[in-house]
Amino acid sequence: MSVEVHITDGPLAPLDASIHMAGEEERVGAVGAVLIFEGIVRRDEEGEPIEALDYTAYEPMAQNQIRAICDELIAGLGLTSIAVEHSRGRIPVGACSFRLTIRSAHRKEALRAADEFIDRLKQDVPIWKEPVWA
Amino acid sequence: MSVEVHITDGPLAPLDASIHMAGEEERVGAVGAVLIFEGIVRRDEEGEPIEALDYTAYEPMAQNQIRAICDELIAGLGLTSIAVEHSRGRIPVGACSFRLTIRSAHRKEALRAADEFIDRLKQDVPIWKEPVWA
Repeated sequence: MSVEVHITDGPLAPLDASIHMAGEEERVGAVGAVLIFEGIVRRDEEGEPIEALDYTAYEPMAQNQIRAICDELIAGLGLTSIAVEHSRGRIPVGACSFRLTIRSAHRKEALRAADEFIDRLKQDVPIWKEPVWA
Repeated sequence: MSVEVHITDGPLAPLDASIHMAGEEERVGAVGAVLIFEGIVRRDEEGEPIEALDYTAYEPMAQNQIRAICDELIAGLGLTSIAVEHSRGRIPVGACSFRLTIRSAHRKEALRAADEFIDRLKQDVPIWKEPVWA
């Protein structure tokens, strides 16, 4: 059971094979499902065209809240690990602002955890986005 | 809207940045969610330890069925693209035998499509697995 959280300035770097590398639990066959979810900035907000989103994070509360959600999901669903990367600052349309990697024994838990994580992120974590209108 | 299907011998190569590269639709801001799901061979089947799984695919029917499922999900859920990689032959414990990449405007459709795709893959696609007992 492991949790990793990174909040970084600007768009996330492309998915890196090293982040994604199989850990010990995967090599020994305890992990059956790896789910990676990326959130990309879309070209409109509420139907109006945008150029970018400006993200503001209230740290360290954001980090702590994300960790708490991860711990809860790992315990509740029996996951192996969760890693979270989130941007702050200006993220242009088409760039990645969020990445979630979940490892678990079975598929259903990983999919459910991804859905719940993102709901909770929007609800409970002090990270706000502000559109930069086109 | 695009569909890519690859059925290849042996374990899938590690996730490649080039496969994962953002397409035109992502760059222009039509894609808000990228979901990658990997199936890894676990160390047991029905509670008994295994060394590997042997996958047999009945082609070209398997390819055609996978394409049909992708087309249906893309049309039904309004997805941007689906790419599927599946192994055949012997896949050792800890190695990746299946990878699904889904792009869509919003998160919920991508998660739902992944779940439905895997259910349909197991139900409708002539790919069988046979445990190699430890």
